[in-house]
Amino acid sequence: MDGSLIPVDVTGHDSFMPRFHRRKVILVTGGAGFVGSHLCERLIAEGHSVVCLDNLLTGRKENVAGLLDHPQFRFLEQDILNRIDWQGPLDEIYNLACAASPPLYQRDPIHTFRTCTEGVLNLLALARATGARILQASTSEVYGDPEISPQHEGYRGCVNTVGPRACYDEGKRAAETLFWEFGAHQGLEVRIARIFNTYGPRMSPEDGRVVSNFIVQALTRSDITLYGDGMQTRSFCYVDDLVAGLMALMASEVSEPVNLGNPGEFTMRELAEMVLTQTGSSSRLVHRPLPVDDPRQRRPDIAQAARLLGWAPTVPLAEGIARTIRHFAGEPQVVRAREALLVHA
Amino acid sequence: MDGSLIPVDVTGHDSFMPRFHRRKVILVTGGAGFVGSHLCERLIAEGHSVVCLDNLLTGRKENVAGLLDHPQFRFLEQDILNRIDWQGPLDEIYNLACAASPPLYQRDPIHTFRTCTEGVLNLLALARATGARILQASTSEVYGDPEISPQHEGYRGCVNTVGPRACYDEGKRAAETLFWEFGAHQGLEVRIARIFNTYGPRMSPEDGRVVSNFIVQALTRSDITLYGDGMQTRSFCYVDDLVAGLMALMASEVSEPVNLGNPGEFTMRELAEMVLTQTGSSSRLVHRPLPVDDPRQRRPDIAQAARLLGWAPTVPLAEGIARTIRHFAGEPQVVRAREALLVHA
Repeated sequence: MDGSLIPVDVTGHDSFMPRFHRRKVILVTGGAGFVGSHLCERLIAEGHSVVCLDNLLTGRKENVAGLLDHPQFRFLEQDILNRIDWQGPLDEIYNLACAASPPLYQRDPIHTFRTCTEGVLNLLALARATGARILQASTSEVYGDPEISPQHEGYRGCVNTVGPRACYDEGKRAAETLFWEFGAHQGLEVRIARIFNTYGPRMSPEDGRVVSNFIVQALTRSDITLYGDGMQTRSFCYVDDLVAGLMALMASEVSEPVNLGNPGEFTMRELAEMVLTQTGSSSRLVHRPLPVDDPRQRRPDIAQAARLLGWAPTVPLAEGIARTIRHFAGEPQVVRAREALLVHA
Repeated sequence: MDGSLIPVDVTGHDSFMPRFHRRKVILVTGGAGFVGSHLCERLIAEGHSVVCLDNLLTGRKENVAGLLDHPQFRFLEQDILNRIDWQGPLDEIYNLACAASPPLYQRDPIHTFRTCTEGVLNLLALARATGARILQASTSEVYGDPEISPQHEGYRGCVNTVGPRACYDEGKRAAETLFWEFGAHQGLEVRIARIFNTYGPRMSPEDGRVVSNFIVQALTRSDITLYGDGMQTRSFCYVDDLVAGLMALMASEVSEPVNLGNPGEFTMRELAEMVLTQTGSSSRLVHRPLPVDDPRQRRPDIAQAARLLGWAPTVPLAEGIARTIRHFAGEPQVVRAREALLVHA
């Protein structure tokens, strides 16, 4: 795929010309993914012109179905490993392109890694060519299985370089390094968000992340899978909060990495019980062995985000989970499974 | 540079055909560098056919001058970012291609990083295509500024992803990840050596590493530069010991990372004083501020290498330093500087 140039021309499209100061032309890579689609919606709602680029490996075009006819929105099916020949203005790039859940990023680990390195280099080159400000969706996985809690930005992490999670963890660490280099030595305006667990509508029901797993299992009355003893903790940020944080970071002058997440900490067992209660499901909890290198604890220190961006999450877990359950109850896969349950009842 | 194919054909060359079981065809990338040139010499001495590939960014053709006319040695000036179209048998690849000292690897940080990622991917593809066993020269820098001493292979390191050393540290971590992936999922025979500080003849006098710095400064009666208080420690392995370790690892069945180094620990001040004593120099010790992210302490735990490879270093520091001083006394740059001292004396 390398080397091919996909031309993107936004000069001739009136809707892609910034008409007044606050309307920007913004590229969102991975824009058809879970977080990306919420970000695209919010940017469009604020009046910006958005090019959403996604290879649809894990993103879904349905996620941006509501935007496809919008005159200021354009969807491009493309991999960031293909260099982009951009014509016209470009104000901002949000790079959210990378599979984010272990079963999906481990499906083609070399592609995952190259997305975070060669793909990132392509986007940094585009930012340099256009003068766009560029934000990298980094991750709490750069902290690996942390020895301290909560994790602050100065913590250097505990990541295994050789193991099944390394293609993602080390890839994301490498992307931060590339961003830092282009910021420090090539004058780019770079932003690095270390995103902690995020949940909400449009999480893929099949990507193996815990919130979507539990909700789908509860709604379809399947067993709810707890790995290990279920006492490992995570902190969960509702997607609207995260999107607000990403936009605040982009608008800031902060080029150092900033944690974005919700510091509220819950065990997997607590989360499972909350989902069972809200769904009224009769699913049972079952235990499976802990996967290799699975972090025991992950919780953001968001003092930097509060101080530098004036940002903090606002949606409580119980409310976010309720909204997410409503979304999943309408997912075709879940609807079909529930209909089958009724047939066999 | 990407994408171009440099053909290497060893099929027509009788000397490159393995004549009996123990003679191998071996590619040494970075073979004109400090460690690489010693490795090439040793492999040739053992009767193997060696292709030495080097972009000469930090390697020097003089380092392999004694091998250029050898019928079983071939030198190729090439960057590993160029894919290699290899024709004929290939038994082993030692990847030593990457600038290794901070001033040199920071000269073009993106090239340094790509050497460790895209360059490594090219070599892994070559290993897959030829069935060659492949060894990566990793580094103690994957441990960063370690919180434990000595460092064992299970220690996950303390590396800053955003800073001037990250292009190398994270690049080398990334290379380990790529090796692991090709070993675990693509059936390659991979070897990963985590090399600690190494010294000896043919270190570049200009690469800013401490042993060469001190010796050149002492021989030319310049001030000897100690960074910080000079109490930070390093462990120094003589290059012949390291080469023996690399070959033992290559010959082993160990695919996990293995530390190679000399656990003898010396402060920078002790090293400076040893060099002053052995050279009889009148140089003064002067202090400079510690560079960003400079590790305070670095010492290998080599229990794994001893247990799995039966390897341990044998050359004491005083003896290795004496041999290295003899080498540097004959370096043209040092000879000229000493002649100038005599003229002005």
